[in-house]
Amino acid sequence: MRRTGRVLAISGGVGGAKLALGLARVLPPEALDIVVNTGDDFRHLGLAISPDLDSVLYALAGLADGERGWGRAGETWQFMAALRALGGEDWFALGDLDLATHVERTRRLAAGETLTQATAALAQALGVQVRLLPMSDDPVATVVDTDEGRLAFQHYFVRRRCEPRLTGLHFEGAQHARPAPELLALGQDASLRAVVLCPSNPWLSVDPLLALPGVRAALAACPAPVVAVSPLVAGKAVKGPTAKLMAELGLQVSHRSIAQHYAGLVDVLLVDADEPGLAMPGGPRIVVVPTLMNTLDDRERLAQAVLEAAS
Amino acid sequence: MRRTGRVLAISGGVGGAKLALGLARVLPPEALDIVVNTGDDFRHLGLAISPDLDSVLYALAGLADGERGWGRAGETWQFMAALRALGGEDWFALGDLDLATHVERTRRLAAGETLTQATAALAQALGVQVRLLPMSDDPVATVVDTDEGRLAFQHYFVRRRCEPRLTGLHFEGAQHARPAPELLALGQDASLRAVVLCPSNPWLSVDPLLALPGVRAALAACPAPVVAVSPLVAGKAVKGPTAKLMAELGLQVSHRSIAQHYAGLVDVLLVDADEPGLAMPGGPRIVVVPTLMNTLDDRERLAQAVLEAAS
Repeated sequence: MRRTGRVLAISGGVGGAKLALGLARVLPPEALDIVVNTGDDFRHLGLAISPDLDSVLYALAGLADGERGWGRAGETWQFMAALRALGGEDWFALGDLDLATHVERTRRLAAGETLTQATAALAQALGVQVRLLPMSDDPVATVVDTDEGRLAFQHYFVRRRCEPRLTGLHFEGAQHARPAPELLALGQDASLRAVVLCPSNPWLSVDPLLALPGVRAALAACPAPVVAVSPLVAGKAVKGPTAKLMAELGLQVSHRSIAQHYAGLVDVLLVDADEPGLAMPGGPRIVVVPTLMNTLDDRERLAQAVLEAAS
Repeated sequence: MRRTGRVLAISGGVGGAKLALGLARVLPPEALDIVVNTGDDFRHLGLAISPDLDSVLYALAGLADGERGWGRAGETWQFMAALRALGGEDWFALGDLDLATHVERTRRLAAGETLTQATAALAQALGVQVRLLPMSDDPVATVVDTDEGRLAFQHYFVRRRCEPRLTGLHFEGAQHARPAPELLALGQDASLRAVVLCPSNPWLSVDPLLALPGVRAALAACPAPVVAVSPLVAGKAVKGPTAKLMAELGLQVSHRSIAQHYAGLVDVLLVDADEPGLAMPGGPRIVVVPTLMNTLDDRERLAQAVLEAAS
């Protein structure tokens, strides 16, 4: 069993962040890089907001709120209440603690740092030793076509609570964005032990990254095993719009649809339960393990299962 | 006794805000305009911060913290604590509630509003009926020459707690800034009942306004009585660096120095106690009244005394 080498994890927000934390707990810090989707990033109230980076950052720093499922533990909402009283835009909830992250990131970007540099500085300040990387330093914006027209991602996701019926997805800026060098290196990186696609929404959280020039080809050519964890548990999304989105895109809400979506990229797919016809000729090897991550132990166990599946 | 007509009050921050509130409580809203110093304004962490405007705004809205003497009542500091943990700049205290004001103002300015428009919107949202005006929509920055070199005002005032020895003051941008039209109209405004210089620091809070093109001349030519309240109480500044600053500028810390500073501009000077030689030939008429404003009643009584002195 191959035990050495780095692991590169690709993550979106909340669901992905849980496994990212599990991996961070079972691997030495120098053996793990986490590359995070930035398609959800946006400017709001003058602030540079990176929801998925922050979800992973807070998870790794031990600051994530377990109850609410997003944002920081011990969060307060004084700022939001005051902003509301001033007639400000209050559809995107910004906690008092969380706000500091956005203000500090915005300040660093304005001072000329890249998002990669700003992210590293925030991670270091919070004692996170694992390397946390945005998928690109260039802006990429996920936009969704819906029955209410084209919407910026956070307007669809937060403001409209995913209620509009989705008909398509675009990643504006992706074709001209430079991917993180770590992503382009995947195709010939012999030091890698595994690439892990965390259980994030494949369409919303992983596809923006795959839309960056050269990344899909690099991942397909990766000499290390590529292991994905299906975000579906008991035939449903644990949190978020994955199941609704799949149905609206005309897909069966099944692990099989996930396997087909990642066809040619993924060597192993971890699922919570087998399905008829899930193992396909030329498709990924299927590993059935518990994938629901409620506790910290769940996160570590799944991380171990991912590493075993890769070996 | 002339009872009709508008009152125009000129105010800096905390001390001025107390009398501004008193005036707002004894006058109908349409009879009071408050023009506020913006020389202390600065950009910090990407936010447009207007300390004096906010002091007056919070006072008029009933949101000011009476104990601390600045900022908002019921303020919390979660954002600051989180920012400090991120290694951010924490020398300027930004409360969670206060932050909403800066974020909303910054958003409005970025959307193309003038500071006058943004201020009016904030005041309206908080139920303030009196007209609150910045002295100018153009940036004016108070800078101080000290024994530690030239410092931006907030660096001197907050970061260095007024500790450096002051040798001079400049109002950068003042000579090219357009004053609020209400200030330029002072010279020929027959509708005015009085102009009030609130008990703010004459050098730091009123001089920036007098440095705007045409304002000093307009005030000197004002047909309405100009009434100033000395910021000194019992021979000292109630709060802030007025006394230290006067001493460092080689001035006696006395009402007489205040009277001399406002020579040719002020018709009446309200002081808490008479001094030998305070009444000077050609100088302002001296009115002795209690000027310390601890309670809301104190504020109203002083406002009444100001209006009587003007009649």
